[in-house]
Amino acid sequence: MDSLFTKIKGGVGAPQGFLTSAISCGIKNPDATRLDLGLIYSEVPCTSAGTFTTNRVKAAPVKLSQAHLRKGELRAVIVNSGNANACTGVVGIRDAKAMCAGAAAELKLKTSEIGVCSTGVIGLPMPIARIEPRIPELVAKLSTTGGADVAAAIITSDTHTKEISISVVIDGYKVKIGGCVKGAGMISPSMATMLCFITTDATLTSECLRKGTLECVENSFNRITIDGDMSTNDTVIILANGKSGMPTIRRNSGACKIFRAAMQYVMLELAKAVVRDGERVTKFVTVDVKGARTYLDAKKVAEAVSKSALVKASWNGGDPNWGRIIHAVGYSRARIREELVDIFINDQAACLGGLQAPTPMDLLRTIVAKPEFTIAINLNQGEANYTMYTSDLSPEYIDFNRSEYAYWKQARKDGLI
Amino acid sequence: MDSLFTKIKGGVGAPQGFLTSAISCGIKNPDATRLDLGLIYSEVPCTSAGTFTTNRVKAAPVKLSQAHLRKGELRAVIVNSGNANACTGVVGIRDAKAMCAGAAAELKLKTSEIGVCSTGVIGLPMPIARIEPRIPELVAKLSTTGGADVAAAIITSDTHTKEISISVVIDGYKVKIGGCVKGAGMISPSMATMLCFITTDATLTSECLRKGTLECVENSFNRITIDGDMSTNDTVIILANGKSGMPTIRRNSGACKIFRAAMQYVMLELAKAVVRDGERVTKFVTVDVKGARTYLDAKKVAEAVSKSALVKASWNGGDPNWGRIIHAVGYSRARIREELVDIFINDQAACLGGLQAPTPMDLLRTIVAKPEFTIAINLNQGEANYTMYTSDLSPEYIDFNRSEYAYWKQARKDGLI
Repeated sequence: MDSLFTKIKGGVGAPQGFLTSAISCGIKNPDATRLDLGLIYSEVPCTSAGTFTTNRVKAAPVKLSQAHLRKGELRAVIVNSGNANACTGVVGIRDAKAMCAGAAAELKLKTSEIGVCSTGVIGLPMPIARIEPRIPELVAKLSTTGGADVAAAIITSDTHTKEISISVVIDGYKVKIGGCVKGAGMISPSMATMLCFITTDATLTSECLRKGTLECVENSFNRITIDGDMSTNDTVIILANGKSGMPTIRRNSGACKIFRAAMQYVMLELAKAVVRDGERVTKFVTVDVKGARTYLDAKKVAEAVSKSALVKASWNGGDPNWGRIIHAVGYSRARIREELVDIFINDQAACLGGLQAPTPMDLLRTIVAKPEFTIAINLNQGEANYTMYTSDLSPEYIDFNRSEYAYWKQARKDGLI
Repeated sequence: MDSLFTKIKGGVGAPQGFLTSAISCGIKNPDATRLDLGLIYSEVPCTSAGTFTTNRVKAAPVKLSQAHLRKGELRAVIVNSGNANACTGVVGIRDAKAMCAGAAAELKLKTSEIGVCSTGVIGLPMPIARIEPRIPELVAKLSTTGGADVAAAIITSDTHTKEISISVVIDGYKVKIGGCVKGAGMISPSMATMLCFITTDATLTSECLRKGTLECVENSFNRITIDGDMSTNDTVIILANGKSGMPTIRRNSGACKIFRAAMQYVMLELAKAVVRDGERVTKFVTVDVKGARTYLDAKKVAEAVSKSALVKASWNGGDPNWGRIIHAVGYSRARIREELVDIFINDQAACLGGLQAPTPMDLLRTIVAKPEFTIAINLNQGEANYTMYTSDLSPEYIDFNRSEYAYWKQARKDGLI
């Protein structure tokens, strides 16, 4: 960890002036034993930013949160897991509005100050009747120690919660940043999303926060892939409430650079945690492309290798199959020359100049047998580079994703369809 | 089958004036029990055409066949399975040239009249010492009845041979077209290729044949996908020797249209056979996109749905999961409007206007339980359409592709590396 930052406890509840809570409403499972409705609230007004899925099919809460962010600043976020409220038409919009209105009424805020997120199965109506009457209870439970509960309320097929909080000194002021994430993202878009919430008591102009968020998301969440799919619900929302008392951070200042590095660190740690907790994942692989003619060429190569089903299957089998890697490099549409391509597994050469390197295959096999390794690809054509974080693809992943029929059966039993 | 065409026997050996043969050289398996070297030869000069992988990493035989086709017309093709001769550098080029030179010497042709193809594992040197001395035997075995042997000599992980031959009457002349294909293509590029050979005794100008081939490949082999990967070796080669005695078919004539329809039929049947025989495939799915604003939009939607790991996993599980289908439609980058999208499974509506249709889920499940069905997607925005042929994705596919280490071990035992 960069010595600039100190890890602290508390997740999204760590920064000053943030209150959080979560309850069980029976959305995720009918017996309501798991937390599935969460709330993040700032005691004072915030500056805020968000990035959302570029899927043309957008869930109702995504459309509503985008509209609220266009109107002004958010100060609270309500989030549920178990149902994505996606492909639910006007009824879905009505349900997402009801969640915001309920929270706004209890918190004495404008509806447009509330962000709303949902994650879960696509195409089933929201069980809104289980949510609305519980919002007063959710608000009553708000506390400075609820960060871990929010992290638990957003997960679906994740095997564990994923949260982080750090403190960083900026211009002499101690600033805290907290975050939690719900995996899946491209991993399991039907379950249905990557959701990330970041809170901070730093003081930033809206412009500085929004531009910084775009850049940090580009260098973290946009660089991970599990199965190449893209969700209808992906959302990152960040709230900055200024409770650290520091002077306002403006664009291009030294303070802005430090804050951005800190936010980048938080987002990248959370993004990597999503890959590590991917469905039935057994390997965490860094794909490091160097020597491309352009940034776009480097990105194309990294994406093609990171998404190839055959490359990922070979990693699952512990097979250091550089032939499959170079074939993905070849079809990436980047400008490459086969005879210049070098491929390293950690620091061992697997392929030099497009041909098999002399490294013993058994040495490469011991590296690929490990749970984490790096595939470094040097195209030897220029100066551009790009890094992605990906996983293997296991037979168990396919098996896990073969059917969601159980959800439909439950929904019919519940009278939702 | 279109009544214009009559199915006949003989595969690539069916058209008049073509001789074919195959032998076992121990490239595919050391005990040489399986055919792995094949030859197709025309008794008279041909017009010829070929299409090749667009992967920037191209196998040596692909580079050489392309060069020979640029120089003039091919009259014979030599092909091996078991080794792709890809990522093998100058040694690979030398080996591919040796295969052509050996065949040319025995057949009394110029080296540039020989096409050469290889399929199998990538990155291992060709066992050329097992091939060269056997070429005289391969040529001596040429006969009019060897079509099925060639079809057998080109397969690798295929579970059976795939060949077809038809006759069609054009301008009063009976014309024959034969073809065989080796699956994999995107299915198993490391094993390593889709290879297709077509023979015909029709008489065509080189221009008519080459343009027709491009169009027919675009409407057949370019419309199939199994795992979204693209091989280093994909090749389609067609030889037309004019032995039917018909007058020369020229571009844009009525005869040209009939011939093209016949070639299209042959290629599409072979392409579909590749999908049906895909590795560990249990479903053959036609993805039919209609109502797109442009051809490119329709293609983007068809490709996104056909390649989505999550959509394909749901088909494997017999789950009529329209939510996953519409989410792939959404991220396809085509211009779509969620509220206009209809999705049908065979003739039953699964999604209407972006929302769940009233069709009982159990009825949709009985359709998806079948080995073949059609997903029809109407974007309701225009007149353009596009069809793709795809498969499910099974846990067994990943399991099957986990490791090729056995090939490397065998190659070391054989002294090749």
